[in-house]
Amino acid sequence: MAVIVQKYGGTSVGSLSRIEAIAENIIATRRQGHQVVVVLSAMAGETNRLLSLATALDPEPATRELDMLLSSGEQVSISLLTIALIQRGFSAISLLAHQVGIKTDNHFGRARIRSVDNKRLLEALEQEQVVVIAGFQGMDSEQNITTLGRGGSDTSAVAVAVALEASECQIYTDVDGIYTADPRIEPQATRLEVIAFDEMLVMASLGAKVLQNRAVEYAMAHNMPIRVLSSFDIGAGTKVINEALMAGESKTSQPVSNIAHHQQEALVTISDVIDENIIAEIFVLLGEAGIEVDMIAVEMQQDCKYKVKFSIHRNDCARASEKLHEMAQKNIIGAIHCNQKIVKISAIGIGLKSHAGVAGKLFAALAKENINVLMISTSEITISVIVDELNLVKGVRLLHQTFGLSSSK
Amino acid sequence: MAVIVQKYGGTSVGSLSRIEAIAENIIATRRQGHQVVVVLSAMAGETNRLLSLATALDPEPATRELDMLLSSGEQVSISLLTIALIQRGFSAISLLAHQVGIKTDNHFGRARIRSVDNKRLLEALEQEQVVVIAGFQGMDSEQNITTLGRGGSDTSAVAVAVALEASECQIYTDVDGIYTADPRIEPQATRLEVIAFDEMLVMASLGAKVLQNRAVEYAMAHNMPIRVLSSFDIGAGTKVINEALMAGESKTSQPVSNIAHHQQEALVTISDVIDENIIAEIFVLLGEAGIEVDMIAVEMQQDCKYKVKFSIHRNDCARASEKLHEMAQKNIIGAIHCNQKIVKISAIGIGLKSHAGVAGKLFAALAKENINVLMISTSEITISVIVDELNLVKGVRLLHQTFGLSSSK
Repeated sequence: MAVIVQKYGGTSVGSLSRIEAIAENIIATRRQGHQVVVVLSAMAGETNRLLSLATALDPEPATRELDMLLSSGEQVSISLLTIALIQRGFSAISLLAHQVGIKTDNHFGRARIRSVDNKRLLEALEQEQVVVIAGFQGMDSEQNITTLGRGGSDTSAVAVAVALEASECQIYTDVDGIYTADPRIEPQATRLEVIAFDEMLVMASLGAKVLQNRAVEYAMAHNMPIRVLSSFDIGAGTKVINEALMAGESKTSQPVSNIAHHQQEALVTISDVIDENIIAEIFVLLGEAGIEVDMIAVEMQQDCKYKVKFSIHRNDCARASEKLHEMAQKNIIGAIHCNQKIVKISAIGIGLKSHAGVAGKLFAALAKENINVLMISTSEITISVIVDELNLVKGVRLLHQTFGLSSSK
Repeated sequence: MAVIVQKYGGTSVGSLSRIEAIAENIIATRRQGHQVVVVLSAMAGETNRLLSLATALDPEPATRELDMLLSSGEQVSISLLTIALIQRGFSAISLLAHQVGIKTDNHFGRARIRSVDNKRLLEALEQEQVVVIAGFQGMDSEQNITTLGRGGSDTSAVAVAVALEASECQIYTDVDGIYTADPRIEPQATRLEVIAFDEMLVMASLGAKVLQNRAVEYAMAHNMPIRVLSSFDIGAGTKVINEALMAGESKTSQPVSNIAHHQQEALVTISDVIDENIIAEIFVLLGEAGIEVDMIAVEMQQDCKYKVKFSIHRNDCARASEKLHEMAQKNIIGAIHCNQKIVKISAIGIGLKSHAGVAGKLFAALAKENINVLMISTSEITISVIVDELNLVKGVRLLHQTFGLSSSK
């Protein structure tokens, strides 16, 4: 009998009727002959409500106490769901992280899971119980309650699935899977049946908030398949698995599986940078200010000075200009120009590793449609371009078409 | 350095401003040079809110899960208070029952404390921390969360005080102490400086809801002084101590310390009960129906049948009549009459043990004022009379005067 771990997020347990709906889904899974272990988030809005109580008392509340406070949210959702399951005649038990034995380090608010004890879980499964576990929380070596950071319940679920050698870890959310592109931009976008862990990680770094990154990393490290699916409209979802298994699962062999876009970046251009040391100094200064730099390009001007281009988050534009102002005054760099009217479009696919000529294909397609590429960067499984924001829709659709994602419909 | 345990009830932590007010009170106690251990209830209304969520899912929710749910309320109040203390520059730590080691049996919803581990508490006090403990909850031998029943935080506080050999256990509530009578009835009523555990237990059985009975029993068994005081208007309160210590503490030597009244009883009269076996049968039947009988009197009629009088809770009148109906139909008992327009007035005092003639004094006083006594009962430290409800105010004031309680003002 296979063990399936199901994680439901805040909106999935956001009301009593939602809790009853997922009770029915759990029972349906149980009736298919599976053992079910459930991991829950707090009811939608609860974490924010508790946080606002704490910050009303202290704008920077003591982190240990904040974790004590916030972890109460999951305690409410797990007991309510368990009550609903028992009311329906199913044997069920709720367990807090410390009762399971989910041990973490002591970095309150962003703790990392060190180990999950499976003893009590196996006992409960032995007794044919549905086990309902509080996500998001753990316990450090001194029995303090810790929390894993926003989205941490995903990681709780994966860690529990690994500890139980579950057949898969289902993450129920408010989207029904991962798409080849954002359907609001590209109507021809289709749900992917399967995607590789690496692709999922890149998508997350590009702003997709479907899964917590740590959860994907944990699953990848332990080869635990994740399935992303909607608790509102339950279908097959999208399975996130190890690259090595993709060949057997994927019905297509496209080099690219997904066209992502990111609208929160700005492109900074600095001309007349006098030498390489000053280039280095620019990025040291930004780093000291905690400003994260995404893409970087450096080109030599005809006067042998450099033009430096890089992308940062839009919110950081003013602060970056301020930090670099002194250098401009010394005339060791020229004018600082910050273009916020840009968008980053990325083609993601583990197939990019082995498909030569993909970059050429991408440039050709964009050139043909007169889309000017302001900047480009590539990694092992992505090609990203920065273009004028007016080209967002046109660009996404063009690449979706170019890499054969539209035709699969 | 003395350890003081302070327990604050739901209304005392009912809002953020109330939490800030008690933080100030704790700090004031700390500044007096005491170690402070705090035990909290959930914020007022929270337990009922959680309970209504549970009963919406199941009118009779699984008790283990209900305890898991309800115990989250104290988790919120303890972390918020601790945040407020730390914000004020004081070292503080919140601890759940399982983190302290408050062990109970496994009677969910009405668990009894078996032991309290003082190791972690002493460590925290060693580090000069204010310790804020979740009341109302415990942990059974299988690490399940249990709750102690309504008012259970009082017992948590006393148990913690005993484990730490505290100098006293202060119970902050919304009244500023125990009075010689209800001040709404007797304006001359005064706050008692001290009262014996036995008197407190009797008062609780007469309907006073100031302290949970188990808390008083626990304190009495371990000789731990309790002080009842208001968190809204902090004064000296009333100290509840062992009878043996009363002589030294009490400034008066009145036989009676308190005139209590109880308005929820009804007086049932059954005439023409044919013999003693039938009398027994009446009370067996009531017992089977779970109807609690308070006072009982039996007198023989001139025809050698019996007249049986007893008092029960008003809510039980209809059910009692129904239960006894069959006996009446068989003519082994006569008509059943239930008088709900009565009130019970009680004089309570450990001094009653040694003061002869108190009953006589009481009867004389009532007779002089033409207050007809419908029924009387005495125990070691109480004398109770049932009178017509029209005599409530007159009766309470008369006895307050008669036993020298009014003159002390």
